[in-house]
Amino acid sequence: MKFDHVAIPSSNIPQSVEWYRQHFAAEVIYQDKSWAFLNIGGQKLALVTPTQHPPHVAVAVSEEELNAASKQTGVPIDSHRDGTKGIYIHDPFGNAVELICYPPGKTVYDS
Amino acid sequence: MKFDHVAIPSSNIPQSVEWYRQHFAAEVIYQDKSWAFLNIGGQKLALVTPTQHPPHVAVAVSEEELNAASKQTGVPIDSHRDGTKGIYIHDPFGNAVELICYPPGKTVYDS
Repeated sequence: MKFDHVAIPSSNIPQSVEWYRQHFAAEVIYQDKSWAFLNIGGQKLALVTPTQHPPHVAVAVSEEELNAASKQTGVPIDSHRDGTKGIYIHDPFGNAVELICYPPGKTVYDS
Repeated sequence: MKFDHVAIPSSNIPQSVEWYRQHFAAEVIYQDKSWAFLNIGGQKLALVTPTQHPPHVAVAVSEEELNAASKQTGVPIDSHRDGTKGIYIHDPFGNAVELICYPPGKTVYDS
C-alpha cells in the first residue's frame, strides 16, 4: 500500500490547472473536462469537479487488495476512464479515502 | 519546492488516528489534542480540528521562499508549536495551500 494522490475540488479545471502551473510549477499528467492530474513537488494532485468526484485522498492497492476491500465493505468497484479501478470508503468524519488500483498495462499512464 | 503533506478535518483526533492506524497502518509522527501528523503509505497526512486549522495541501519551501511569498501576498508568517512556520494562500476555488518551512534544527522533527 502506497499513498497515491490527493484530490481537491475545482469548478473550472483549466483555470485551476493554470493557477497551479503558475504558482507551483505543476506538470500536467492528465487533463479532461471534469478532472486533471498534476505533479506538484513530486506528489500527484488531482483537481476534480465535485459533482462528479468527491474530494479525497487515495492509496494505491493491488487488484487482490481492492477485491478483498470491496467484498469486506460491500462497495462495488468502479472502473475509470483512465483505466484505473477503485472504491471509496469514508473515515469517521466523512473524509473520502479512495483505494485505487492501476492494473498493469491497462491504464493510460502505461503508454 | 517539494510536496509536504495533506491535511483533512477531524473533530476527534484520537478516534481518527485509530481509524487510520487500523485501516492503513498509519504511523504517528506527532499528535496532540488539536492535530496529528501521520505517515500513511509514505506520505504525511495531517488530521486537523477545522476550527483551528483549515484543511489544506502543503508544499515545503525554504525560509527565503517563505519570506518572499509573505511579502508578495501580504500574508503574515505564522509560527507553529512544532517549530515550523508558514502561510496559507488560496487557489481560485478557495482550497487552502500552505507554504511550510522547516527551519533546520528548530523543529520537533529534528531531534
